[in-house]
Amino acid sequence: MRRIMLKVAYDGTAYSGWQIQENGHTVEEALNEALSALTGEDIRIIGASRTDAGVHALGNAAVFDTGSKIPADKFCPAVNKYLPEDIVVQSSSEVDPGFHPRYAKCRKTYEYTICNAAVPNPLTGRYSYFVHYPLDVEAMNEAAGYLIGEHDFASFCSAGAQVKTTVREIYAAECVKIKGGEFPQPSQIVIRLTGNGFLYNMVRIIAGTLIRIGQGMYPPQQMKDIIEAADRTKAGPTAPPQGLVLKEIEWEKGEQDNACNQDQ
Amino acid sequence: MRRIMLKVAYDGTAYSGWQIQENGHTVEEALNEALSALTGEDIRIIGASRTDAGVHALGNAAVFDTGSKIPADKFCPAVNKYLPEDIVVQSSSEVDPGFHPRYAKCRKTYEYTICNAAVPNPLTGRYSYFVHYPLDVEAMNEAAGYLIGEHDFASFCSAGAQVKTTVREIYAAECVKIKGGEFPQPSQIVIRLTGNGFLYNMVRIIAGTLIRIGQGMYPPQQMKDIIEAADRTKAGPTAPPQGLVLKEIEWEKGEQDNACNQDQ
Repeated sequence: MRRIMLKVAYDGTAYSGWQIQENGHTVEEALNEALSALTGEDIRIIGASRTDAGVHALGNAAVFDTGSKIPADKFCPAVNKYLPEDIVVQSSSEVDPGFHPRYAKCRKTYEYTICNAAVPNPLTGRYSYFVHYPLDVEAMNEAAGYLIGEHDFASFCSAGAQVKTTVREIYAAECVKIKGGEFPQPSQIVIRLTGNGFLYNMVRIIAGTLIRIGQGMYPPQQMKDIIEAADRTKAGPTAPPQGLVLKEIEWEKGEQDNACNQDQ
Repeated sequence: MRRIMLKVAYDGTAYSGWQIQENGHTVEEALNEALSALTGEDIRIIGASRTDAGVHALGNAAVFDTGSKIPADKFCPAVNKYLPEDIVVQSSSEVDPGFHPRYAKCRKTYEYTICNAAVPNPLTGRYSYFVHYPLDVEAMNEAAGYLIGEHDFASFCSAGAQVKTTVREIYAAECVKIKGGEFPQPSQIVIRLTGNGFLYNMVRIIAGTLIRIGQGMYPPQQMKDIIEAADRTKAGPTAPPQGLVLKEIEWEKGEQDNACNQDQ
């Protein structure tokens, strides 16, 4: 048996999230079905990030064990023939049989995109959150800076999360306008976060909080107080899922044999 | 009665194009229904560009006549409440009662987007054409340059078009990589054309021809011969609709009273 890792991209619009559930179609289920059809085995993948309903990914990861003779890098083109158009495996490689994508040390990068305009844009609505009041991107970026470092992020964790600790480390956090003009001209604003892990709904609650700061409801420095409070009620609302994309997972060296080859 | 002009954006994926037809849902039909519901009148719009099935728009235009007392600029937010999410009016203004968006002189800008990568990206597939062999963007841009000027574009017109002449003027034509790396790293390539009018399928046939040049099937200079031949069989295939967006229509001064105010 070999353990194969897939880099997985998907448009989450039509899915009830990553994780298999009784009601609703999931990305995990679609991958299990495609890999089982391809190999003739009963494949059960293990995902790196169990993204929520409606959240997208360009670089989620999953592993599975197989006795198939298909070369590791050929799983990518082969399994794509069995997948729906909105799920596309980007690459495949062999990893150490003990490698577990949920416990291995890594850096994850998420992007949350906001369409800031007077009128919605039907060509960006599927992948962004439409905000129709002007946002102060500089204030949002200043506030994002307080997230960097190791903190207890309990203020940014939805109830119902089963985690041992709400401490996580954020390596990079920024909020930038990537294109467009001054409001009411349309612009696209991206919140980009890289960290060693994210709590349940953490990026979406951070986005909801930064949007409140962007509209002037809180000053940027209040982000520091919100973190320190370690109290979900002090942060802003959970921003909707369609703005969120899991961009990339970078594995720390030594965490898997083929770490450097995952994108080959 | 006043004549009102709308700037209209839509995701064309779900529509059988702009123009009303017996079988299939169209953008024109959706706008007629929404405006009729809003005003209580039997509204029949006149569109500027009858885009094909699956083609998108950010700046198509349409006019209609109404006895309603709604202020001209309020039609935009009002009608959006009656429209599906994939059609959004961007602005509304009053124009001269004699203004006809299909006969008025204008500059139209279309963009055709190509996703050039080894593996498809499910987050761009709805708005681009996936090409999995490497494209030479410089050769494509050189070829696009031959399109500029007044020419008989019969080589780029699908059969069945009912037009008096196939002569059109192209004011600007370019092909640029807007993001991404070297193949097989993913990149986004945009073909951008501005002209005084476009024949049936013209932008998509130009895109199909430029893609052949990008893959080295023809040298860039052959574009000149293809134009001069005035023969559809000399050009490349018609590229698929989902890569195409009608970006903008700019009306020439004097063509309508409120030409300068259309985006206010």
